[in-house]
Amino acid sequence: MTDPFVVIGGDAAGLSAASKFKRERPNREVVVFERGEWVSFAYCGMPYYVKGDIESLTDLLSLSPTQIDERGINLRRNHEVVSIDPDQKSVTVRTDNTEFDQPYSDLLIATGASALTASIPGTSLEGVFTMHHMDSAGALRAYLTRPAESLSIEIDGGYADTAYIERYATLEPPESVAIVGGSYVGIEMAEAISAYDVSIHLFQRSRGLLPAFGDAIGTRVEETLREKGIDLHLDTEIERLDGDRHVESVVCRHETVATDCALIGVGIRPNVDILSKTDIELGDSGAIATDRFGQTNRNHVYAAGDCAEMYHAVTGERTWIPLGLTANRAGRAIGQTVAGDTTPVGDVAGTAVVKAFELECGKTGIVHHEEARAAGFDPISETITASSRSEYYPGAAETTVTLTADTGTHRLLGGSIIGTDRAAIRIDTLATAIDAELTVTELERLDLAYAPPFSPVWDPILVAAKVLSGSLKPTE
Amino acid sequence: MTDPFVVIGGDAAGLSAASKFKRERPNREVVVFERGEWVSFAYCGMPYYVKGDIESLTDLLSLSPTQIDERGINLRRNHEVVSIDPDQKSVTVRTDNTEFDQPYSDLLIATGASALTASIPGTSLEGVFTMHHMDSAGALRAYLTRPAESLSIEIDGGYADTAYIERYATLEPPESVAIVGGSYVGIEMAEAISAYDVSIHLFQRSRGLLPAFGDAIGTRVEETLREKGIDLHLDTEIERLDGDRHVESVVCRHETVATDCALIGVGIRPNVDILSKTDIELGDSGAIATDRFGQTNRNHVYAAGDCAEMYHAVTGERTWIPLGLTANRAGRAIGQTVAGDTTPVGDVAGTAVVKAFELECGKTGIVHHEEARAAGFDPISETITASSRSEYYPGAAETTVTLTADTGTHRLLGGSIIGTDRAAIRIDTLATAIDAELTVTELERLDLAYAPPFSPVWDPILVAAKVLSGSLKPTE
Repeated sequence: MTDPFVVIGGDAAGLSAASKFKRERPNREVVVFERGEWVSFAYCGMPYYVKGDIESLTDLLSLSPTQIDERGINLRRNHEVVSIDPDQKSVTVRTDNTEFDQPYSDLLIATGASALTASIPGTSLEGVFTMHHMDSAGALRAYLTRPAESLSIEIDGGYADTAYIERYATLEPPESVAIVGGSYVGIEMAEAISAYDVSIHLFQRSRGLLPAFGDAIGTRVEETLREKGIDLHLDTEIERLDGDRHVESVVCRHETVATDCALIGVGIRPNVDILSKTDIELGDSGAIATDRFGQTNRNHVYAAGDCAEMYHAVTGERTWIPLGLTANRAGRAIGQTVAGDTTPVGDVAGTAVVKAFELECGKTGIVHHEEARAAGFDPISETITASSRSEYYPGAAETTVTLTADTGTHRLLGGSIIGTDRAAIRIDTLATAIDAELTVTELERLDLAYAPPFSPVWDPILVAAKVLSGSLKPTE
Repeated sequence: MTDPFVVIGGDAAGLSAASKFKRERPNREVVVFERGEWVSFAYCGMPYYVKGDIESLTDLLSLSPTQIDERGINLRRNHEVVSIDPDQKSVTVRTDNTEFDQPYSDLLIATGASALTASIPGTSLEGVFTMHHMDSAGALRAYLTRPAESLSIEIDGGYADTAYIERYATLEPPESVAIVGGSYVGIEMAEAISAYDVSIHLFQRSRGLLPAFGDAIGTRVEETLREKGIDLHLDTEIERLDGDRHVESVVCRHETVATDCALIGVGIRPNVDILSKTDIELGDSGAIATDRFGQTNRNHVYAAGDCAEMYHAVTGERTWIPLGLTANRAGRAIGQTVAGDTTPVGDVAGTAVVKAFELECGKTGIVHHEEARAAGFDPISETITASSRSEYYPGAAETTVTLTADTGTHRLLGGSIIGTDRAAIRIDTLATAIDAELTVTELERLDLAYAPPFSPVWDPILVAAKVLSGSLKPTE
C-alpha cells in the first residue's frame, strides 16, 4: 500500500492541498497534522471580529473539522510534527506525551508563520497581545468589552483556549491601547479598537504608515487616523513594555506612554525550526526555498503558505510575501501535483488591500524605487488624483493612483490606489496588467468600463497611465 | 499659411482631438463645426438627470464653450458641414442661410450617431422621446414633473431648446410611460422614471433584457425590474404608436397598451449621410471604415466616435461598438497623429457597464457563442455565483460571473458580471485580461486582492476561471 500524502499544518495552504488531492485521488490517504486546536481560520478577518462586525470567532473558519472529515481528510489536531527525515520519507509526530513516526509518499510543509515579538522586551506581560492567533483575538475582544457583556460573546466552538479568554473577560476594559506597528494589522486594528471607548496610541518605527503602499497612501491614511482621534507616534522606536504583572507603559527612546493594553504587530517570521536538522534549503528571506511547483530541494517534499518563498511576478526572483490567496493557490496546486497532474503554484505580485476606516488602499507589484532598482529596473513614477465616477454623479470621490514603470522598457512594475469609493477593488486591474507584463502604453489603451455611477470616461487608472506615458516620452 | 485642422462634430471624439492637437501644436489652428447648440455633453448621464440625481442639464457638459475657447479651439456652433471634398481638401459649411467653403490640412469626421426611430410609425407624436439628445432629456424631465415644480428645473445655460422643453413643463405628468427597447438605455431609463409616480411598461423585441450581456444577466435584471413593479412585455414586436396629436397607445401584434408617454431606445445609427457624394468607404456595419490610426481610405481624412468603426480587441476585425471611452481615446489619438506624433487609436473590447436599480452589470469581449463562432473560435462558457467579500463580512453579496473561452487555445474571449456589491468595476479585470490575451489558466493564477471587506480569498473571477479551467481539461 502507498504511504499517505502527509501535510504539516491545518490552515490555508495545508487544507487546500489536502482537499484538492483527495478530490483528485479519492482512494489515496491524506493526513494533516495540526499542532493546535484551530484549523482553516481566516487571520484576515480577526480585526473585524475584534471590532464586533463579526459575531463569533468560529465565523472565521473556512472549514470546520466535521467538513474536513466529510472530505475524507484524516485531520489530527494537537499533533505536532517535531522532525522530518527526507531520506526515510518519514516525519516524527508528538501528541500528548507520546511520539510516533509517520511515513509519507509526499510531504507538504505548511507550518505558517508566527508574530515577531523578540525585539521588544515585556511582551509576555498581561494585557499584551499579538494579532496572529485566534485566541488572542478572542481575549482582546473580551478585554475591550465590559465584563457583563463579555460573557455573551461567542468564543468557543470547541477550539478556543477558554481559560485564557475568560481571564480577560473578567477584567475591566483598558483605558488606553498601544498599537505597536503601522502596517496592515496595526491599521486594521486601529479601526477595530476605535469601536470601543478607549484612547489609542499607534507607534511606528518609520516615518510613514503602511510603508509598503508608498507615500501617497501613507500620508492619506495618517490624516484619516489623526481625524479619528488616534494618537500617532511616527519615527518612534519602542525600547520595551514596562509593568509589574500587567503592562503599564510603552517605553520609547524619547517618551514613555502609559497604557494598560498593548498590541504587537511588527511583522511575522516563517515557522521553519522543524527543518533545522534537515538539508532542506531556506531562501535569503529565511523562508523555505521552493521551485515553480512548490517543491523544495528534496524530492517529494513541498512547502507552501506563510513558511515558503514564491516567485515574484515582476522580478522573476524568489521572494517571501506571505498572503492568503497565494497560500491557498499554492496549496491547491501542490495537491494537484501530488495527485499526478503537475501544476505550477503561480507567481506572487504582492497584491494587497487594506481598509482604514472609510479609506480603501491597494497595492500591487513594485511601487518603491529602491526595490525596483535592486531588481535591475530603472524606475519612474507618477501620482494623480481623479474622480472615482463621473464628477456630476452622486458619490464620486477623489481617487489617488501611483504607477511605477521601467524607463527602459516602459513595462508597468507596480501601482497603488487609495480612495473612499471602490478604490481597493480597482487594484485588480493593475495586478492583471502587471502579471500580463503590459507596458504603460498598453495600459493607457485598455478598454475599461465607463458609466457615470461606476467610473468616469477616463478611469483614474487610465488618467495615471496617460500621465506616466507622457513622462516616459523622449523630450524633443 | 497651413490650412487648419477641421473637425466635424463638437462632442467626445471631436473635442478630444481638437484639445490634444492644440496642446501639441499651440500655433496651429483647429476649427470645430457643430451643427447644434450643445457641445461636449455626456449622453450617458442623461438617465440620471431625468431621475433627478443630477440637478442641471449643464452639469453633464464636460467642457463649456468658454473652456473650449480658452483652449484656443475655434468652435463654431450652429454650423453644419453639408459636404466634403477630399480632392480639394475642403468642406462646405451651412449656417443660417449662408454657405461657405472651409479648406483643411486634415479633417476629422466625428458626426456621432442618431437614435433609430424609422422602424416605428408614430414617433413624431407629442409625448414621444428618444434618449439621444439633451433637449429630449430636458423635455422628459419637465413632463414627468408637476407643472408647478417644472419651472424651477434648470435646463438652460444658453443651449437648450427652451420652447420645446417649456411646452412639456406646462403639461400634467403622464400616468403611464412606455419604454421601447430593453438594452442599456431602456434599463437605465426604467430606473430613472421609477423615481416618479407613474406606471411603466417596458417592451423588448427579444426574449431577454440586455441581450448583449448574456442570459445570466438578462434573467437577473428581469427579476429586479419586475420586483420594482415594471410591467415587462418581452418577445414583443411594436407595430406603431397611436394617437391623435399626443401619443395614446402602443400597438403591438397581440396587444395594445394605453400610454401617454413613450420613450424609444431601439438603437442608434451612425451619422454618415454627409459622405454620400464622396468615395470615403463605409464598413459592413454602415459606420465609417478606418485604419488603426483612425484614418479613412482617403489621406488626411479621419473618423472617430459613434460614426466610425474600430478594431476589436478579440477578433482583430473591424467592428462598430459606439461607446464613450473609445470615442474619447480615438479622438485624442487622432489629434496627436495630426499634430505629428503618429498614435494608434487602440482597440475596442466592447466593455460596458450598466446600473439597474441596485444591480450592477458589466460585460467585456465576446460572451455569446454565435459571435465567437462567427469570429472563428470554438467557444465554451461557465457561469458561477460566488460571494463579493468574505462570506462572514457584512455587505457580502452574490456575484455571478460568466466567462467564455476558446476551446482550442484556452484564450479568454469575454465575460460578464452581475451583483449588487462592486460587481461592475470588477469587469475591468476581465477587460485587461482580454486585451492582454490571457488564457483561462493565466487568469486563474492572477494575484488578485484579498481582504475580507473587499473580496474573498478567491475572487468571483478566480472562482469562474477555476471552473472554466476544469471544463477545458481533457477528460481522462
